[in-house]
Amino acid sequence: MSVDANFSELKQRLQAIEDLRCAEAVLNWDQSTYMPAGGAEARGRQLALLSSLGHERMTDPMIGRFLDALTPWAEAQGPDSDAAALVRVTRRDYDRATRVPPSFMRKLTEHTSAAYHAWQRARPANDFAAMRPLLETTVELSRELAAFHPGYAHPFDPLIDLAEDGMTVAMVRTLFAELRAGLVPLIEDIGRRPIADDTCLTGDFPEHKQRNFGETVVRAFGYDFGCGRLDKTAHPFMVKLGRGDVRITTRYRSNDLSDGLFSTLHEAGHAMYEQEIDGALEGTPLFHGTTAGVHESQSRLWENLVGRSLPFWQHWYAPLKATFPQALDGTDVHGFYRAINKVAPSLVRTDADEVTYNLHVMLRFDLELDMLEGKLAVADLPEAWHARIKSDLGVAPPDHRDGALQDVHWYGGIVGGAFQSYTLGNIMSAQFFAAARRDLGDLDAQIGAGEFGALRGWLTDRIYRHGRKFTAPEIVERATGESLSIAPYLSYLNSKYRPLYGI
Amino acid sequence: MSVDANFSELKQRLQAIEDLRCAEAVLNWDQSTYMPAGGAEARGRQLALLSSLGHERMTDPMIGRFLDALTPWAEAQGPDSDAAALVRVTRRDYDRATRVPPSFMRKLTEHTSAAYHAWQRARPANDFAAMRPLLETTVELSRELAAFHPGYAHPFDPLIDLAEDGMTVAMVRTLFAELRAGLVPLIEDIGRRPIADDTCLTGDFPEHKQRNFGETVVRAFGYDFGCGRLDKTAHPFMVKLGRGDVRITTRYRSNDLSDGLFSTLHEAGHAMYEQEIDGALEGTPLFHGTTAGVHESQSRLWENLVGRSLPFWQHWYAPLKATFPQALDGTDVHGFYRAINKVAPSLVRTDADEVTYNLHVMLRFDLELDMLEGKLAVADLPEAWHARIKSDLGVAPPDHRDGALQDVHWYGGIVGGAFQSYTLGNIMSAQFFAAARRDLGDLDAQIGAGEFGALRGWLTDRIYRHGRKFTAPEIVERATGESLSIAPYLSYLNSKYRPLYGI
Repeated sequence: MSVDANFSELKQRLQAIEDLRCAEAVLNWDQSTYMPAGGAEARGRQLALLSSLGHERMTDPMIGRFLDALTPWAEAQGPDSDAAALVRVTRRDYDRATRVPPSFMRKLTEHTSAAYHAWQRARPANDFAAMRPLLETTVELSRELAAFHPGYAHPFDPLIDLAEDGMTVAMVRTLFAELRAGLVPLIEDIGRRPIADDTCLTGDFPEHKQRNFGETVVRAFGYDFGCGRLDKTAHPFMVKLGRGDVRITTRYRSNDLSDGLFSTLHEAGHAMYEQEIDGALEGTPLFHGTTAGVHESQSRLWENLVGRSLPFWQHWYAPLKATFPQALDGTDVHGFYRAINKVAPSLVRTDADEVTYNLHVMLRFDLELDMLEGKLAVADLPEAWHARIKSDLGVAPPDHRDGALQDVHWYGGIVGGAFQSYTLGNIMSAQFFAAARRDLGDLDAQIGAGEFGALRGWLTDRIYRHGRKFTAPEIVERATGESLSIAPYLSYLNSKYRPLYGI
Repeated sequence: MSVDANFSELKQRLQAIEDLRCAEAVLNWDQSTYMPAGGAEARGRQLALLSSLGHERMTDPMIGRFLDALTPWAEAQGPDSDAAALVRVTRRDYDRATRVPPSFMRKLTEHTSAAYHAWQRARPANDFAAMRPLLETTVELSRELAAFHPGYAHPFDPLIDLAEDGMTVAMVRTLFAELRAGLVPLIEDIGRRPIADDTCLTGDFPEHKQRNFGETVVRAFGYDFGCGRLDKTAHPFMVKLGRGDVRITTRYRSNDLSDGLFSTLHEAGHAMYEQEIDGALEGTPLFHGTTAGVHESQSRLWENLVGRSLPFWQHWYAPLKATFPQALDGTDVHGFYRAINKVAPSLVRTDADEVTYNLHVMLRFDLELDMLEGKLAVADLPEAWHARIKSDLGVAPPDHRDGALQDVHWYGGIVGGAFQSYTLGNIMSAQFFAAARRDLGDLDAQIGAGEFGALRGWLTDRIYRHGRKFTAPEIVERATGESLSIAPYLSYLNSKYRPLYGI
């Protein structure tokens, strides 16, 4: 076959694989938003079928042959070309998918599904003992999964590499150690100051008004409702159901403004990334955000660096107060700004503030590495968790529910490879934002005027449009002119929180 | 392979085919309810892929071999056994699917999709000329499709047989001629009486109240919201997304009570049929309502024979009036009953009353047969339509929009095979209801007390639970002890409408 025929056939196959994934995403979205309870069993079977059809097609040896045939032609177009990126990234996905035997994938999927169902009961029941044997198996299977991918420096590099192409245990450890050294003094300094008052966030906030306000803000950000929707769910998420259909979900508590609003802003950040990927990449593995960390950098950038900033609220506080005049009566923009940026040690990662959040992540990263390396037995996990959160944050979980059982990750998937991306996202969000500020000059003034076009344009040009063409380190380098660094993030936190707390 | 192994393998394949169809149904449901406009193109491609995967699996020659191997064993269990029905119905589906070459199916699908998009513009623009060449091709392709199925008495029997297993052009013609002979005198008698006053249906009916009332009624019918949902759409429909997930949709006009309410009741009738099929048939072609006509008999039974009856409103009018006190002020239950049963010749089938509705169907059935038989050129269709509706109903369409362009069927599918099922459904609805009344005795008293359990139980036992195990004529025979007959339907219409109109 000619290069053209090979390329066209490969793209046709990849398009079908993407379409199957999107169909699966529709079924998943529906399951989390509107599906009646009675449909659960059939839906599980439908999802498993679509997933296995996609996997079958992605591991078809013909994919490998097309890639072999196309590599010289694609490389000749230069590493930044769409063709070279397509062949490179597809090869990576193909190799990763084919290295793992289908029988192992089935065993892993069945086990994690059973563990997830058990966890849904065990967490509310505070029953770590019920999860212990299941988690032991998960650790074992996670090790086996890693072992299918040889040639890495650390045996668990492949687990990180799966989420963060190009990242290693050593790189993450170094970054985290530096970050910890910078965070701890800030947290200690804040800890000596009076705690911020956030009672204004816990008044009466009717759901439909929360929804309207959140929708107005993310529309102003540039999230396109003609190519998306906002629905309610138990655990907020963003999902792409195809080009032109990138949806977000959130949740509302009528006595809490913060959860629903910042979840909406967060998911809109993920969604704008997906909405702005170059349409020329549609139907290929490139038509997605590049890594979990870069994705998180965008949700956190819009949620925190924009959405928890003073300039942002200098514009938006008036309409917010007009929406909730009673609940916000007596609170001015500065009081509100202090409330949404309250720093206080807490037990639960998802409730944590910007500053302490990363210590929650490091705790998990270290404990999961210890479990994978055999240094920590699953039986000893609750005690290790307890000791670590006490020493890091000075708090002690009264139960497993808000201790070692709190996150779904180890119970609905493998152990290792997920948590680091949250903090990598935080780090990158500040580095991207600092570069955008340098390039755009009066960014704060724009945000203070409710204008986000220039920022979104910059992010689209530097990050969004490329999809998976570049790795996280490459994107950081291309977008900011620097290599990945914690300096902008520490600078952001210090310059925001020290004045806020009068330090 | 042993019988057991063959049967188990066949069932596994059929389950996957059903799961693919259900996944397709989820994507279709979403497309009609919540999908943002931007997602249309990708969704079309996803749907086409799932549909072709299902078709590929259904036409796999292995299916034919399993059926061959299992037939003697299945038949030995008797024609009413699940096994015999499964082999019989699967064989029918397999034969129908394999007789049509995939290349023809692709051509037909592409053409009807193009025609449907053109019709969406042409109908509002009143542009029959734009549709003429497309409809000519549709007629040609409909003839070709019929020709793939040999061995029928009339060349278009296969088109009817597709929707109504066991029905023929000759059977429908005979039934329709008898029905017409019975309907025309009734319509003429009603035409000589003063027209009913239905202004009470066109007040102010806020959407959320319409929704709540409709939901309350169909919940009382027995539609299970734990295994279903009610959403809004442009064209109401019922869809099964899997066992335990059978959804309905409706639409609301704030100045019209009737459209939203009776659409909800109608779709709930379809849905209860699907909800009550024996779970043992799940994952097989038997796990659906048997024919379009029997399905329609259930939507019409709950919409009309129950929902437009006086006993029904003797119970429900008080809560309805409490819901809309202003709009229904001054209207008593008898006035309301007359309003919802107003008979008047009209241009549009979907707006037609129970009595004249069937003349709309017969007009379409005759014209489509004339087109298929070459007796009527597509170019002459508008004129023929005009002449026929004038002579049948005494009204003249002022345009094509409410004339030959009004229904989607010929423009979004083939010509022939669809319309007859609406009237067959009407006929069967009365025959089933009469039999239920005989068996249940005080059915009117039960309905008047807001109790539907015995009726639903009877329908489940006689019709719903069997799924596709029996054909329409068989189901009529088994449920009523008689063969299909128009007598109960004419008797129902005469005994309802003559007193209503003081004839």
